[in-house]
Amino acid sequence: MTVVTDRTASLLSRRAVLGSAYRLFYQQPFYPVRGEDVWLFDEQGQRFLDAYNNVPVVGHCNARVVEALSRQAATLCTHTRYLHDAILDYADRLLTHFPAELNRVMLTCTGSEANDLAIRIAEAVTGGRGIVVTANAYHGVTHILAKLSPSLAPIDDFVRTVNPPSTEQGEGEAARFGQEVAAAFADLQEKGIKPCALLFDTVFASDGILPPVAGLFDEAAKAARAAGAVVIADEVQAGFGRLGSEWWGFKTAALSPDIVTMGKPMGNGYPIAAVVAKEDLIEHFAAKGRYFNTFGGNPVAVAAANAVLEELESRQLPQQVDVVGTALGQRFQDALSGLGVKAIRGKGLYWGIEVAADGKQSSTERAVAVVNHAKQSGVLLSNSGPNADVLKIRPPLTFNAEHIDLLVGALEQALQQ
Amino acid sequence: MTVVTDRTASLLSRRAVLGSAYRLFYQQPFYPVRGEDVWLFDEQGQRFLDAYNNVPVVGHCNARVVEALSRQAATLCTHTRYLHDAILDYADRLLTHFPAELNRVMLTCTGSEANDLAIRIAEAVTGGRGIVVTANAYHGVTHILAKLSPSLAPIDDFVRTVNPPSTEQGEGEAARFGQEVAAAFADLQEKGIKPCALLFDTVFASDGILPPVAGLFDEAAKAARAAGAVVIADEVQAGFGRLGSEWWGFKTAALSPDIVTMGKPMGNGYPIAAVVAKEDLIEHFAAKGRYFNTFGGNPVAVAAANAVLEELESRQLPQQVDVVGTALGQRFQDALSGLGVKAIRGKGLYWGIEVAADGKQSSTERAVAVVNHAKQSGVLLSNSGPNADVLKIRPPLTFNAEHIDLLVGALEQALQQ
Repeated sequence: MTVVTDRTASLLSRRAVLGSAYRLFYQQPFYPVRGEDVWLFDEQGQRFLDAYNNVPVVGHCNARVVEALSRQAATLCTHTRYLHDAILDYADRLLTHFPAELNRVMLTCTGSEANDLAIRIAEAVTGGRGIVVTANAYHGVTHILAKLSPSLAPIDDFVRTVNPPSTEQGEGEAARFGQEVAAAFADLQEKGIKPCALLFDTVFASDGILPPVAGLFDEAAKAARAAGAVVIADEVQAGFGRLGSEWWGFKTAALSPDIVTMGKPMGNGYPIAAVVAKEDLIEHFAAKGRYFNTFGGNPVAVAAANAVLEELESRQLPQQVDVVGTALGQRFQDALSGLGVKAIRGKGLYWGIEVAADGKQSSTERAVAVVNHAKQSGVLLSNSGPNADVLKIRPPLTFNAEHIDLLVGALEQALQQ
Repeated sequence: MTVVTDRTASLLSRRAVLGSAYRLFYQQPFYPVRGEDVWLFDEQGQRFLDAYNNVPVVGHCNARVVEALSRQAATLCTHTRYLHDAILDYADRLLTHFPAELNRVMLTCTGSEANDLAIRIAEAVTGGRGIVVTANAYHGVTHILAKLSPSLAPIDDFVRTVNPPSTEQGEGEAARFGQEVAAAFADLQEKGIKPCALLFDTVFASDGILPPVAGLFDEAAKAARAAGAVVIADEVQAGFGRLGSEWWGFKTAALSPDIVTMGKPMGNGYPIAAVVAKEDLIEHFAAKGRYFNTFGGNPVAVAAANAVLEELESRQLPQQVDVVGTALGQRFQDALSGLGVKAIRGKGLYWGIEVAADGKQSSTERAVAVVNHAKQSGVLLSNSGPNADVLKIRPPLTFNAEHIDLLVGALEQALQQ
């Protein structure tokens, strides 16, 4: 049971200084003071299983990452206008996880900056500005990305939305998705807006968490390219092994994108993100101007990101995700199916549990109640999706079999309330 | 004398992986391996006086900052959707350096994100999109900021440029600047584009380094407000004491801006940046939507930024800048005036030395030669401005009287070549 302490109340009263655009999670806000692996601890020392945060991908306060960034911060922190070995070692190592044609890396600080740069590259390559995104997409907070994120803000006249593909719809979704994308680009062209990019989150997190399968994006990619647009896979949510040993959503879908963006888990909390793209696209962009990001790819960022790769690779965490994810999905099905749940979707360690309305509450109200109840039981999760009625579960990848009981038990209890 | 080692050659050959939009400094690229206070060291152990980098404001690898961020990274790194005390302590402390009406703080990771957010806020407040910037402005790398940065990319149809105000032009510059701003907004309105913001770097770094004096922006701000636009002071370059004990360029100019942006030195290299603005502007923005920046204002970023404030305040570095900057400016005048120099401009620890052409070289070629020669003498600087012929000097604020001889001597020698 969470206690609202004097300390919490005092912090709440002081938050006005940040303005009211910020939102806190939970009916009784959470005030963690320490993190360790899959656990967060509050000021009373109560521990919470973190089944929500995808940023600390190799665990909160991972020792290897902390050591790497602390050592580098004490040694040198400069920028990409000077030579440095670590950024090149890191870029080469990152690319071992990509198909050969994706052979260039540009580094930014945030997923927003990566998606924003991807749009600039796509515009330079195509000369167009028409962009197709999914109906409840979220791609970041910059000026252009807000216009490409219908879950955040109204879209602009150069943007079209399509319904995301869901394997729940059975056969034919690849074709249906492809047809919608083709129609969206055709409509842009009719209005005199030249196509630029098809941009989508490969796990459709804000659309309700819709994990991909092989071939699901093939027709859409074909339609985008036929219209002269490039295909951008946003892996800020899905990437770095969250969906399992294929490492990226686009690989799970057997897609060959032109540009891939990544961020959140890349530095386990240190701000680092990237664009990985085909050489000719990067060179098109470079021909039109230089790029410099003051902190992007600094030696400390790269040290943290390299330690993350080392942890993922040496502990084979993406492979572990395959096993743990399958077991977790089975437990969800077994334990939760009868409890007013409309759908259980997921892959690896990214799961969405869509709750149904009951006699007393709408589906949204019920999801909010579950999230708050689970916190009372010591489990952190959130809700998302077009109606905010999909429980969002994406723990650090160090989450394993021994944590399943606590997570599923808390959900079971919360859904039974 | 810099040696191109096998190691440097090997790094150069591997840089293709980053694509060619990145630029390296110097004819023979610099490969530092260690930093300490105002010094960078190469692999041979040669030390270089850093008279260029404004990010390590309290010195490379500052012990207090390194300790603070290392300790926090080992304790907790979450985000603004949970309560945390340090972000509130930091916001309150930062605001003690601002006038009372600037009373809200929003945190991002980079100066680009801060300027990008400032534009979103200005659009929300004014309902307009017409923006006035200076002729060779640079405000960042996002999609919208590239369009507002004529030094980087072509401006868009909703942007107008004005000549930056220079005290070298004598009396009347405040009025001339104000008239140009008024005319620019009038032209936007004539074209049906509603005014949104006057955005300028308070030290006009990319326009050639033009330090402000009291009253210089008054007429321009008046013109912007008369047109319905907000006034945004970009302090990413000038801020945090670089111009001296007034802390910010807008204070030096005795201006009251609506929004202030800051970044580079804020975390001494850790990616953190901010928007400080008046409450009613932030609330206008908040009324139209939420804001969340995954890494922005995380506890580690805030720990680093707080350690920077502690160093600046407890060592009274901005006050020291007043003294050292005055002495440095006098030495520049005494030693360099006869050496083919057109102008020496600066304040505090931000100086621009505009070099003249000579019989053999254009002013640009000569500036490039000086920058490379100074490096050979163990001093790091760069060149900037509309013609890239202004030597750009902005060392860490720990630069003091004992470093002046080395810097001025290297410049003297390089200009005599």
